[in-house]
Amino acid sequence: MKITIAGAGAMGSRFGLMLHKAGQEVFLVDGWKEHVEAINRDGLKANFNDKDIVEKIPAVLQCDIPTDFKTDLIILFTKALQLDDMMQALKPIIHDRTDVLCLLNGIGHEEIIEKYVGLDHIFIGNTMWTAGLEGPGKAKLFGTGSVELENLGEGQSAKAKEIANVLTEAGLNASYSDNIRYSIYRKACVNGTLNGLCTILDCNITGFGTCKYAHEIVTSIVSEFAAVAKHENVSLDVDEVIHHIEETYDPETIGLHYPSMYQDLIKNHRLTEIDFINGAVAKKGEKYGISTPYCKFLTELIHCKEEILKAK
Amino acid sequence: MKITIAGAGAMGSRFGLMLHKAGQEVFLVDGWKEHVEAINRDGLKANFNDKDIVEKIPAVLQCDIPTDFKTDLIILFTKALQLDDMMQALKPIIHDRTDVLCLLNGIGHEEIIEKYVGLDHIFIGNTMWTAGLEGPGKAKLFGTGSVELENLGEGQSAKAKEIANVLTEAGLNASYSDNIRYSIYRKACVNGTLNGLCTILDCNITGFGTCKYAHEIVTSIVSEFAAVAKHENVSLDVDEVIHHIEETYDPETIGLHYPSMYQDLIKNHRLTEIDFINGAVAKKGEKYGISTPYCKFLTELIHCKEEILKAK
Repeated sequence: MKITIAGAGAMGSRFGLMLHKAGQEVFLVDGWKEHVEAINRDGLKANFNDKDIVEKIPAVLQCDIPTDFKTDLIILFTKALQLDDMMQALKPIIHDRTDVLCLLNGIGHEEIIEKYVGLDHIFIGNTMWTAGLEGPGKAKLFGTGSVELENLGEGQSAKAKEIANVLTEAGLNASYSDNIRYSIYRKACVNGTLNGLCTILDCNITGFGTCKYAHEIVTSIVSEFAAVAKHENVSLDVDEVIHHIEETYDPETIGLHYPSMYQDLIKNHRLTEIDFINGAVAKKGEKYGISTPYCKFLTELIHCKEEILKAK
Repeated sequence: MKITIAGAGAMGSRFGLMLHKAGQEVFLVDGWKEHVEAINRDGLKANFNDKDIVEKIPAVLQCDIPTDFKTDLIILFTKALQLDDMMQALKPIIHDRTDVLCLLNGIGHEEIIEKYVGLDHIFIGNTMWTAGLEGPGKAKLFGTGSVELENLGEGQSAKAKEIANVLTEAGLNASYSDNIRYSIYRKACVNGTLNGLCTILDCNITGFGTCKYAHEIVTSIVSEFAAVAKHENVSLDVDEVIHHIEETYDPETIGLHYPSMYQDLIKNHRLTEIDFINGAVAKKGEKYGISTPYCKFLTELIHCKEEILKAK
């Protein structure tokens, strides 16, 4: 299968590398010039579960997509903010039967993808794999994970299972879900609380989690996600989701980490993905006539902080 | 008239000094030992409109209130958080006819004062004077200002006018208002936006004011203040108040200043008065059945920040 990894950062490198090792015809697309050059010159290097490996995988710059090549499957791993530009760049390699699997965090990405391929060819998923990038062309891949995915178009579950099968054969532990929106909303609740709150409060997860008002704030935000999800026929178990979020506060596990949005904005002065998390819920809330003031205010505060820090 | 200044910081020093110069029998009460000692030893010193002056005014520590002295009027200038303790400390000098004038920023202080004196003896006001403290026993007083005040108890307007007259005779430019709650809510809207937002966003007034979402956030917060005020028969002119707030963004006037809450929390790691501004609106909103999520969330975020910075 001709598989294009769109966004070959840490996670894209993991998927590309594992699928290539499994014999798939992989093609990496990324916007970082030094990274693409290093992969084409030296191969994609990785410390893969403590073993150094190299895979020769073709890579191209996003602005340099060939026109004599058509892909069967695109797996999306771009930043949410770059999704539209990436889909636009990929147009030459999309044909009638090209499927797109979106594994981005956040919600509402299908609205962008739908502009480029029909609903029958869109699959959305959720992954628990992790990955790191040590420098151009060099990934660090450890631990285990899984993927859940589902078709967006009606009657496309057979194809969803086929894609899951391709990933599983590469060791990516994928499974078909008949309720992927539940997993996506559940994960978005984690990002929709810890990301924005740790960023605006300038603290790590434990720092926020040990505050007296943490439970009340988390409850307000998760309740807004749940109200919007309910309107899309997803019934989130609010108490379970809150408990799931509160488990991350433990400093012995991941509590001492600073969420990705904190790293993006506070550390690196980069624009955030808030519009695809709390902002998406606020927007859907407005559309459905559901009040979502905590998501709206948090989105506005993060955008203010972006301006104050001159994020790009 | 025997006048007790409760909280003899910058503003209390101004009022005490001007009233003493005008011949009133002034008595200063404060919790800062070095300040009280300096005043008793060397007099209250001030750079008063560029002239160095000294006034011999008796001062006592809050924990050391004499029992052989009764006061006619108490003017409150404590921090909101210290109001209850101060009133408790002043009990020995309060008699049946003691009046209390509260000039604290924020809303809802009368609920605390009412525990110590009857409604007929409570007057609330609003001042536009400014003042600074340069060190123990030394104030810096420049510029002009005014005071507006009103009786809380019915039929007490004559006494309110009498108090305004005493202040005006001391040069404090006071007037009776028949709608003091309007002025208090209007001023609370300024504090309820700039204070909390600049603190949580870590920026000065212009820094917040130039953000794309500033107008939307300010509109949401002022609308909540207005909804609660309306329930108390105060009809805020929301557009005028927003315009009044937005005038402060100008870097040529006060835009480059960091609001007092920022100084308290971010600079000096002190607890804030958020419960008497946005927190008071959220509490009243809950009582009246009015939705005030922006005030509630901002109050919760500031309390989180207090915990994260270990504010005291």
